[in-house]
Amino acid sequence: MRLRNVKNAKMIVDNSSYIIHDPYAYKSKFSSEIFQNSNPIHLEIGMGKGNFLIDMAKKNPNINFVGVEKYPSIVCRALEKLEAEKLFNIRILCIDAKELADIFDKEIDVIYLNFSDPWPKKRHAKRRLTSPLFLQIYDKVFKKDKVIIQKTDNEGLFESSIINLTSYGYIIEDISLDLANSGKDTSLTEYEVKFRNQGIKINYLYARKK
Amino acid sequence: MRLRNVKNAKMIVDNSSYIIHDPYAYKSKFSSEIFQNSNPIHLEIGMGKGNFLIDMAKKNPNINFVGVEKYPSIVCRALEKLEAEKLFNIRILCIDAKELADIFDKEIDVIYLNFSDPWPKKRHAKRRLTSPLFLQIYDKVFKKDKVIIQKTDNEGLFESSIINLTSYGYIIEDISLDLANSGKDTSLTEYEVKFRNQGIKINYLYARKK
Repeated sequence: MRLRNVKNAKMIVDNSSYIIHDPYAYKSKFSSEIFQNSNPIHLEIGMGKGNFLIDMAKKNPNINFVGVEKYPSIVCRALEKLEAEKLFNIRILCIDAKELADIFDKEIDVIYLNFSDPWPKKRHAKRRLTSPLFLQIYDKVFKKDKVIIQKTDNEGLFESSIINLTSYGYIIEDISLDLANSGKDTSLTEYEVKFRNQGIKINYLYARKK
Repeated sequence: MRLRNVKNAKMIVDNSSYIIHDPYAYKSKFSSEIFQNSNPIHLEIGMGKGNFLIDMAKKNPNINFVGVEKYPSIVCRALEKLEAEKLFNIRILCIDAKELADIFDKEIDVIYLNFSDPWPKKRHAKRRLTSPLFLQIYDKVFKKDKVIIQKTDNEGLFESSIINLTSYGYIIEDISLDLANSGKDTSLTEYEVKFRNQGIKINYLYARKK
């Protein structure tokens, strides 16, 4: 996600009720205190401008969605869209994904990784969101079965995800090398709309570890 | 592989010393009686006209190669090429792959599946060479670690292979969605040369089960 300076980004983020301002205080308490129900919690890491998350939250009122995005300047783009809606099943964390294990303790059912930074250089491989480093973090936040759903146009990231996930014990239960023509119904991200219009193939996988 | 009638195909096959004429008689004895050494044995199922197998056998004199091909009319194309060579580390079985467990008993180190028939219809899924039915057969022929190396231009077959293999306990240790541009050195099949010339992307995977 390319960064753009957004005037007052931090102020908008600080004042939004969609943002969880002190996430560490809610460890083990997201269901009871934040959402106040026992519905499953799905997490999108790198939510960008929020189209996917907002669409999913609208379509699935019985699932709680948490979006994670590091940059306030991007988060406030999502907040602009959210302020026009009244969605009780969506919250946003403006944090680094590395902090997730300090925020959740076995509370998450599904993690979405949509068009994550591919970090193509070998020396940056650890930063990919499907690196063993992150898979270890996810182990701590998943409730029971671990489900990771990934979409990406980047072949290198997709290849390394398949190797990392299966080496870590995940089964690839579903996969498509051309999501747009697969017949699968899926909420679209901002990138995805652009890529589909350009005819760029999108890779998709659904991985589960018991 | 499209079939062409080859005059005297059966006669050529029957008279070739590269063909193992009574494979059932050599169960558990491929190393000791056929190859008369203890080198690893690699199997290509659906060897077609044999380019891949012959090239691999030339490059790897310390590996024994067995090619499997159902149709005598295709096998004799490979035999034409083989008769011009003197390769002691290659043999051919003119059989159906379903018979493999009757021929080998824990003797194979690696199985190659190159451009196998994709059987795209759901009701034919069992016939794909990475269906659970075949993975069960391979369990009986593999010596220790199970290694399957697949190349295909067919996305549907590749997707179903990844699902079947990982569901069956295989780890995808290496993968490429664009083999020609991956920098990997590999012997080429007849199809592969044609596809590369046409710019068709080739998918590759290296799967292992312990």
